[in-house]
Amino acid sequence: MRAPLYEGKAKRLFETEDPNVLRVEYKDEATAFNGEKHDVMEGKAKLNNELSALFFREIEESGIPVHFQEKISETEQLVTKTEIIPLEVVVRNRVTGSLEKRTGLEEGTIINPAIVEFYYKDDALGDPLLNEDHIRLLGAATTEELVEMKRLALLVNNVLTSHLEAAGLLLIDFKLEFGRLGNDGEVIVADEISPDTCRFWDAQTHEKLDKDVYRLGTGKLQDAYEQVRARIGG
Amino acid sequence: MRAPLYEGKAKRLFETEDPNVLRVEYKDEATAFNGEKHDVMEGKAKLNNELSALFFREIEESGIPVHFQEKISETEQLVTKTEIIPLEVVVRNRVTGSLEKRTGLEEGTIINPAIVEFYYKDDALGDPLLNEDHIRLLGAATTEELVEMKRLALLVNNVLTSHLEAAGLLLIDFKLEFGRLGNDGEVIVADEISPDTCRFWDAQTHEKLDKDVYRLGTGKLQDAYEQVRARIGG
Repeated sequence: MRAPLYEGKAKRLFETEDPNVLRVEYKDEATAFNGEKHDVMEGKAKLNNELSALFFREIEESGIPVHFQEKISETEQLVTKTEIIPLEVVVRNRVTGSLEKRTGLEEGTIINPAIVEFYYKDDALGDPLLNEDHIRLLGAATTEELVEMKRLALLVNNVLTSHLEAAGLLLIDFKLEFGRLGNDGEVIVADEISPDTCRFWDAQTHEKLDKDVYRLGTGKLQDAYEQVRARIGG
Repeated sequence: MRAPLYEGKAKRLFETEDPNVLRVEYKDEATAFNGEKHDVMEGKAKLNNELSALFFREIEESGIPVHFQEKISETEQLVTKTEIIPLEVVVRNRVTGSLEKRTGLEEGTIINPAIVEFYYKDDALGDPLLNEDHIRLLGAATTEELVEMKRLALLVNNVLTSHLEAAGLLLIDFKLEFGRLGNDGEVIVADEISPDTCRFWDAQTHEKLDKDVYRLGTGKLQDAYEQVRARIGG
């Protein structure tokens, strides 16, 4: 078996026989706080692979371009190879986490219209917040790409919010990554969409059903992810 | 003598008999790292009052609206009363300080065109960087005010850069604050413009001649500020 092209905190990427296709293998590992907290979580890979496939299919059906192709095993999926833009694009519908610390606004405060943030994908720098001038200075993305990522991120927000609402879940915030496709550099949604990269709260109780369960140590991560899967019918 | 309307780290603000005019009194105090480092610096008040008056006059002559009215003593000046917008507007021409940490770019890297950053004026939160969505969420400024602050900040950059260049100084970066004036809320440049709020480097040697001398403990702050004053003919 060949070595992974890339190994991240929660998944590995492998080349396939098709140079335009990569195989993603989800890992049974959870990390938080830029890798300071780290644990093996049996069953997490399967849940994230299933949920990510489900969310990607959902947003693709709404006409949003995605790298996801197909789920090929319990823990693996095939995706279109892209050149990843080194930005984390975060959409927020309610205040929590770093936004609570940054603004002093109370956790749970509704954000309407949703806001978008860009973070620099750089572990050594601690994934800092960037403004659009920083992004241009770093050459991380063009102004056109920024506009397109924002537009797509807000579309994804609409699609996922509706989908989750029907399952009694609030989409609090989520992180997307984007890739440039082929020669024309079309910007498409890449990476993963899962409870590792989204925050879900129960619509009634505001119980957290995402990686915050692990970050905050309030329960068993797999139980929360399984509840999300069961509710949205994965 | 009445109590100050406001006392900050490096100056006090007093009301005057004219409700539209405030008296600013500069203090012989230096602070850094959000107040963690603090010292009395004899002669600093006089230097900052003189330099701030000089810079305000310079930019006003270029048609940029400012709150500065006149210097009335060695350490005091009169300014027009405004409603201060709770943002620090930073313009950067070269990488240093927090931008070096945020981006990983090398200190001294030329930034062209200059970039603008907005920070939330909130000591308890540590004056965090904000993007334009955060600013709208917090209601700190309107979109129109943001556009106007950016426009004025870049104009100030042009005026000061030329002025300092003639004195063999590089304007590395600076912070402005803006206020809303009267009923129509015109946005004008407020606060101070001094070596406390700007970074100046010798154009040849890149010697730092601003508050970094104090932040980094590399020399006597007053000597650096005096050198700036002497060079620009205050």
